Amino acid sequence: MGLHRVLEPAGVLPQAAWRLDASPQIAPNEVRIRVQRLNLDAASFRQLSEKHGGDGEKVRAEVLEIVSTRGKMQNPVTGSGGMLIGTVDEVGRRSPLGLRAGDRVATLVSLTLTPLTVTDGLARWDGRSEQVPCDGYAILFARSIAAVLPADLHPELSLAVLDVCGAPALTARVVEGYVAGRAREGDARPVSVAVIGGAGKSGSLSLAAARRAGAGRTVGVVPVDAERDALAAAGVADVVAVADARDPVALSTAVTSALAAPADVTVVCVDVPGCEHGAVLATADGGTVVFFSMATSFAAAALGAEGLAADVTMLVGNGYVPGHAEFALDLLRAEPGVRRLFEARLAAD
Amino acid sequence: MGLHRVLEPAGVLPQAAWRLDASPQIAPNEVRIRVQRLNLDAASFRQLSEKHGGDGEKVRAEVLEIVSTRGKMQNPVTGSGGMLIGTVDEVGRRSPLGLRAGDRVATLVSLTLTPLTVTDGLARWDGRSEQVPCDGYAILFARSIAAVLPADLHPELSLAVLDVCGAPALTARVVEGYVAGRAREGDARPVSVAVIGGAGKSGSLSLAAARRAGAGRTVGVVPVDAERDALAAAGVADVVAVADARDPVALSTAVTSALAAPADVTVVCVDVPGCEHGAVLATADGGTVVFFSMATSFAAAALGAEGLAADVTMLVGNGYVPGHAEFALDLLRAEPGVRRLFEARLAAD
Repeated sequence: MGLHRVLEPAGVLPQAAWRLDASPQIAPNEVRIRVQRLNLDAASFRQLSEKHGGDGEKVRAEVLEIVSTRGKMQNPVTGSGGMLIGTVDEVGRRSPLGLRAGDRVATLVSLTLTPLTVTDGLARWDGRSEQVPCDGYAILFARSIAAVLPADLHPELSLAVLDVCGAPALTARVVEGYVAGRAREGDARPVSVAVIGGAGKSGSLSLAAARRAGAGRTVGVVPVDAERDALAAAGVADVVAVADARDPVALSTAVTSALAAPADVTVVCVDVPGCEHGAVLATADGGTVVFFSMATSFAAAALGAEGLAADVTMLVGNGYVPGHAEFALDLLRAEPGVRRLFEARLAAD
Repeated sequence: MGLHRVLEPAGVLPQAAWRLDASPQIAPNEVRIRVQRLNLDAASFRQLSEKHGGDGEKVRAEVLEIVSTRGKMQNPVTGSGGMLIGTVDEVGRRSPLGLRAGDRVATLVSLTLTPLTVTDGLARWDGRSEQVPCDGYAILFARSIAAVLPADLHPELSLAVLDVCGAPALTARVVEGYVAGRAREGDARPVSVAVIGGAGKSGSLSLAAARRAGAGRTVGVVPVDAERDALAAAGVADVVAVADARDPVALSTAVTSALAAPADVTVVCVDVPGCEHGAVLATADGGTVVFFSMATSFAAAALGAEGLAADVTMLVGNGYVPGHAEFALDLLRAEPGVRRLFEARLAAD
């Protein structure tokens, strides 16, 4: 778990630590990665970019300052990090991860708990994109997760998929649970799914995952017409609706209109604060809301559902589900529409 | 939903609003309550008390300032509120709540969304307890929930139970799900439950609820020996363990030792920050963590589970489950040990 890398405060896990020891010498159960690219969490990048008014130089300086101060890339405001790709540099003799020197890998654990040293001053990054070219070192622990990048996909495409691969896996599990429950009860009603932020990375994969898991009707909600057109062209949602997710009445009206009823499962994939109440209102009694956005407020979700007397199950989106990386990459390969959305995003970056 | 009471910002629900209209004139679907007592959320009271170094006068002044500024009692730091008891003053002709003037009621929706006016300056409160004697007015909306206080229990005892009644109801539902799932699969293993903060209000009720729902083995974790003795005497947990819930290794070791394995269901009922990682580590793969503490950090839970590659379901504790008030009051009546814990807490206040 990397406890020996925690410098302060003592006794916490690396993710909760203020500062980690990012020195390159590895313990017998560790792996050192030569970093090639960081992929900042969307909420983190947005916060930094807005704080500095879009000034890329200042964003870059703050990221460097965070990494050098903390020994990891964890945005102090959002608490979130991101992930990285690189090449395996050295494998400790007791590492259980099954990696070999030279493997091209992506880390599937957050940067918030990954010891990191930047050696190039991020000189090749303009501070205007979540994708950060980077030279440096990172350390994986025994219980970390890393995926060897597949040979048939561009590394940046794989990284973008792996960054959000927990969302489609958990969405599929939740939808399968409703499908199986209705089958057991002889309930013929189709399971309906709403994905808020359906045109984004985690959103489009979650829509594809919901359909594959047996959802009978899906709606993707997007904030603007351009995203509506892109998501409609991708063909992964039965209906595409435009609504501001921060407006509870507008969001729930859009979902309820599209599905002719509130959703059985609502998946929140937008990285802006204030979407909790709308998601709860958009969900049927007995339904489930899955929050994947790091901008989610625990108190707003808990008190919002209580205040609305809403009998909904609310899940903290766990980024880890066994098999999540392979599942997400398979969805991308099988769904040309999802792949086009991802490639368009990468081209725009 | 009370949208017409939102003054700023426009368009959000009352819980998310910065300021509500707390004027006493009711709309046809509203109810006005003459307030007798506020019960501040534990996390909120703790934050206020610590901020002011235990100075009750300053705590009282800040609560008055919050209510007069915001038109509701919502702690700006913790985001949480509490609940209240009072007497129904006037019922709008279209109110669906089934209340009558003169009913003695407790509100089961949070103070964070309840329009409130304090008229006595909280003169009878010393600022040193969560229980706040208060004269004033509060407004219930059509979708609010209020429970008529039972005649067989002291009102303060009922209020203390109703304040946390979502926790035992959701705990029971989750445990029943595991019990039923194992029965379907012919899996004879007992379902094990760990309650962190087991001697507190929500904790002791959750332990009793878990046992009633079919848990085969339960452990209550408490921070100090005095709580260990009290919880052991109450007889609602199979094992009582002492551990600091903020220390992930200590907490998971305590739970795993008590249950001879990680817990199937872990319920977090302690109102201090930093318990997310320990709760995840204390939970078996395929298990569930239910977070009831308003001090829970969404990002710490999500990233912690991912960073530990922990395949656990994490629930945001929804304070509303149908039938929760009756269920919690029945548990108190049926479990003398739980009742003694509650009465001891009230006597100490």
